[in-house]
Amino acid sequence: MAVVALMSVACCSNQESVNPGNAAIANIMNRKSVRSFTGEEVTPAQLEVVLKAAMAAPTAMNYQPWEFVVVNDKDKIAEVFGGGHHGEMYTNAGAVVVVCGNTVMMRKPRGQENAPEEEVPNQFWYEDCGAATENLLLAVEAQGLGAVWISCYPIEGKIAAMREAFALPENIMPFAIVPIGHPAGDDQPKDKWKPEKIHYNSF
Amino acid sequence: MAVVALMSVACCSNQESVNPGNAAIANIMNRKSVRSFTGEEVTPAQLEVVLKAAMAAPTAMNYQPWEFVVVNDKDKIAEVFGGGHHGEMYTNAGAVVVVCGNTVMMRKPRGQENAPEEEVPNQFWYEDCGAATENLLLAVEAQGLGAVWISCYPIEGKIAAMREAFALPENIMPFAIVPIGHPAGDDQPKDKWKPEKIHYNSF
Repeated sequence: MAVVALMSVACCSNQESVNPGNAAIANIMNRKSVRSFTGEEVTPAQLEVVLKAAMAAPTAMNYQPWEFVVVNDKDKIAEVFGGGHHGEMYTNAGAVVVVCGNTVMMRKPRGQENAPEEEVPNQFWYEDCGAATENLLLAVEAQGLGAVWISCYPIEGKIAAMREAFALPENIMPFAIVPIGHPAGDDQPKDKWKPEKIHYNSF
Repeated sequence: MAVVALMSVACCSNQESVNPGNAAIANIMNRKSVRSFTGEEVTPAQLEVVLKAAMAAPTAMNYQPWEFVVVNDKDKIAEVFGGGHHGEMYTNAGAVVVVCGNTVMMRKPRGQENAPEEEVPNQFWYEDCGAATENLLLAVEAQGLGAVWISCYPIEGKIAAMREAFALPENIMPFAIVPIGHPAGDDQPKDKWKPEKIHYNSF
């Protein structure tokens, strides 16, 4: 009994005692948009967790159309994002991830097993990128970091700027721009619960 | 000391001892598509957690364009989904959530503060719905339930079927169909980690 008690003390003093499911829900509810950062580094290990979470998103037909431009060169961040709207938000971030999607996919024509694959539009690329971006934001929150989802697609000016800055091929569409850093302020999650948005069995 | 030790035992025997952030990450990595269900009920309390998580998603300009049709009437599920592809998946689910988005928003014309609001397209509705759907799936996983994201938008036939089944107004677009239930099989998460999808500072 004494041994068990001591082991428990050890486990509970190092780590909070929580139900893992509840912790996952709390992380979703606590995620907030963070737009001011301290300038501290986001480590490669932290970025890897974030990108692994993003790539664990659901994806139609398992196509995984996402691609991630990780901008962690401070000069590049300043050059691409520093002069625009919210310039300081970007230059104080540890990294900026541009979530992109491949808008085309290769597929054999329907019912023609022996035909060569041909390029067709992937009409679900932005859904998959939306899920990946949300996973990315949740993995940021889970590590005590902060981030904000800045929409890029379908805003033509932003798309063109990202294409030029990062040499994106024609079929790679910039979807969202996500600065990630150490929160400098006290941003809080918004309460968006509206039961009137739930419709049982008919709208 | 004895009291502390006993309290710790109590806390650790009731709940697993985990780092909350790690638990949130693990939940993201463990989420999987579940397509076979036992037929057991999903409780109103479980559904509320799922819908709260969905509504905690990020949303452009805080517009919250999402609407949720929750189909928990077994007859309605059978009528709408039972005869089609994967009919049994739906009839064995505890509920089906149709995530919808409002494709229009009310806004004053730019720079005209005294003008009346006018209806304009919300060009970000599907991004917000993508994030909400992912939060929903993660809250399902966190509760030991299972679900799968069935794409609806932009497939015309499915959109028309959902519009008719649930009397959706013109501006409410069905985005995704999500059966939720108790997993009957042993579905596992896919490993989708591909470092070659990461591009540092240029594509």
